[in-house]
Amino acid sequence: TARNLFLLPGDGIGPEAMDEVRKIIAYMNEAMNAGFAIGEGLVGGSAYDAHGAAISEDDMKKALAADAVLFGAVGGPKWDSVPYEVRPEAGLLRLRKDLELFANLRPAICYPALASASSLKPELVEGLDILIIRELTGGVYFGEPKEIIDLGNGQKRGIDTQVYDTYEIERIAGVAFEMARTRQNRVCSMEKRNVMKSGVLWNQVVTETHKAKYSDVQLEHMLADAGGMQLVRQPKQFDVIVTDNLFGDMLSDVAAMLTGSLGMLPSASLGAPDGKTGKRKALYEPVHGSAPDIAGKGIANPIAMIASFAMCLRYSFNLVKEADNLERAIANVLDKGMRTADIMAEGANKVGTVEMGQAILAEFKTL
Amino acid sequence: TARNLFLLPGDGIGPEAMDEVRKIIAYMNEAMNAGFAIGEGLVGGSAYDAHGAAISEDDMKKALAADAVLFGAVGGPKWDSVPYEVRPEAGLLRLRKDLELFANLRPAICYPALASASSLKPELVEGLDILIIRELTGGVYFGEPKEIIDLGNGQKRGIDTQVYDTYEIERIAGVAFEMARTRQNRVCSMEKRNVMKSGVLWNQVVTETHKAKYSDVQLEHMLADAGGMQLVRQPKQFDVIVTDNLFGDMLSDVAAMLTGSLGMLPSASLGAPDGKTGKRKALYEPVHGSAPDIAGKGIANPIAMIASFAMCLRYSFNLVKEADNLERAIANVLDKGMRTADIMAEGANKVGTVEMGQAILAEFKTL
Ligand SMILES: CC(C)[C@H](C(=O)O)[C@@H](O)C(=O)O
Ligand SMILES: CC(C)[C@H](C(=O)O)[C@@H](O)C(=O)O
Repeated sequence: TARNLFLLPGDGIGPEAMDEVRKIIAYMNEAMNAGFAIGEGLVGGSAYDAHGAAISEDDMKKALAADAVLFGAVGGPKWDSVPYEVRPEAGLLRLRKDLELFANLRPAICYPALASASSLKPELVEGLDILIIRELTGGVYFGEPKEIIDLGNGQKRGIDTQVYDTYEIERIAGVAFEMARTRQNRVCSMEKRNVMKSGVLWNQVVTETHKAKYSDVQLEHMLADAGGMQLVRQPKQFDVIVTDNLFGDMLSDVAAMLTGSLGMLPSASLGAPDGKTGKRKALYEPVHGSAPDIAGKGIANPIAMIASFAMCLRYSFNLVKEADNLERAIANVLDKGMRTADIMAEGANKVGTVEMGQAILAEFKTL
Repeated sequence: TARNLFLLPGDGIGPEAMDEVRKIIAYMNEAMNAGFAIGEGLVGGSAYDAHGAAISEDDMKKALAADAVLFGAVGGPKWDSVPYEVRPEAGLLRLRKDLELFANLRPAICYPALASASSLKPELVEGLDILIIRELTGGVYFGEPKEIIDLGNGQKRGIDTQVYDTYEIERIAGVAFEMARTRQNRVCSMEKRNVMKSGVLWNQVVTETHKAKYSDVQLEHMLADAGGMQLVRQPKQFDVIVTDNLFGDMLSDVAAMLTGSLGMLPSASLGAPDGKTGKRKALYEPVHGSAPDIAGKGIANPIAMIASFAMCLRYSFNLVKEADNLERAIANVLDKGMRTADIMAEGANKVGTVEMGQAILAEFKTL
């Protein structure tokens, strides 16, 4: 049976970056008999232009049926004033919600060749390897009520609701503890229990889950604001960080920026394993956005998209060796001094999107 | 008529730091005829130990009646398991709410003498001077419902509510624009309008307020996650940042850490000017916490508390020259190489809380 991939390149630099992944898929099919079957759809602004929605029902069905979704990026000034319900981000949020992709894995690693590109002192980021586990289908992103009410007299009220149930916290904590066991065996849970009731519950449930099933893992709790500070002060103190949807959004972006490798960082969004088949729904996307200012110029960095595909190989198809090799290919090409414009440094060899993709593929073939 | 100060030293290193401010007040009364009258109360864990509440009704009355409140810090492991309603932070949150201190001013400045203490590369933080204006009486901190519901079957639900009304956004935006006019005339407003309805309203109201009354000020909007990234990447791009209570909590902590001067940074929390007298309620507190691990050892850094008093001189009593001089005294003492343990560097002169306080006072006297 085929391995079904559904590609949603999206807007801006999404399609360009995705093209480089296509080449790797083609090679794996040809040379390794990987058996990937590819479907493709529209998401974000491009879906809005075609269908008036941030993703069509048809494409949602295909995403639900696929073994894994590869997602590029969405958004751009062209769609800045479309109605809230059909804004580009709505496509991504609907995918996360309807596929029940509750576990967002965001590695913040520092490629050795790029340590000097960080705004932090190199000794603070060299060898950095954090995994942020962000809850992705709950919290203030989806809680109801979520509305703007007209109060009259020129006054409006904007409302969002942060909601977490025990089971939601339990399952994301479980993912964090499992992941920690494959790494340095340390988890730091972040919330604002001193201000938020959902934070109080979060803290309790993580503590209980740890006690009941994962007491071999080292667990620490940190207030989310202090966590942001500590990420900047001494990022290497962390192994796995687990946190809610909104804090995870903020903290993973700060962590990504620390590495100096933003534009290089992938992410995986995973559902629960199916009771029978053990398969889990999954979506893979670069952490960077659609970068409309450089779209279409052939200068975007495809590494985050390619690294997202490496995560796909690992988590959706258990192709661990292939994933490792693809990641090594990226690191090797960087070591050789190849750089796209966003990570250009003195004396390096400046290349475009296609050249970078080809170089990584060529390297991958040798491994 | 006297200038009424109400002191709430609180827990941990709060009292030690406050003692150094007392000496400055005494000097100003004696040598400058400043006419400060001092009241004092308990807040946080120490209030809980004495009254079973995070602040007593009596002390709340005194805080409400004072011209300004000087607040130390609250919390410590001793009170980690007291009930939520009387936890140390509840005292601070009640003060903010009941005094209607909606505008929290958090300067993130980099003392030149400490640029090398930042985890960022010195050239990125040298001369850094950002003012974060955080909304302090609304948002998810105070919105209702805020509760944990028992759903049965071992399931609980934690709920917090993010609420912003037009007038709340208008008045904090007004503070930001006014402040910007006294600085570089630039405001960056941060929210998550791509996910939150309160963010959509925030964005609209800031835009309208700008158009109606402050179009001379340069205004930019940024998503809060991107804002966190940009703070790490290129902090000097910002002048004034205005944001909500929760984003302000996170972003101001990240910004504070960037400066390398955490433990040095003050804050002011201001109410609206009274229609008749023009006076505004105010509370001044260091950004750092109660640091229970070093409390009572005489090694805490009193600079943030003293700098908070400088803000008090400026914003509550319009003693601008005195405020400037006190800030200069701090910078001069740092330039001379005096350092408390938290900011110790090779070759510097290590001093304790009292010595640092005395040195700043001595310097202040010469200015
Ligand atoms: C595009 C946006 C809705 C999204 C989010 O806020 O989750 C993005 O910032 C992310 O982190 O994936
Ligand atoms: C102590 C706590 C309640 C407080 C907050 O979250 O506002 C603190 O972190 C702050 O930033 O002043």
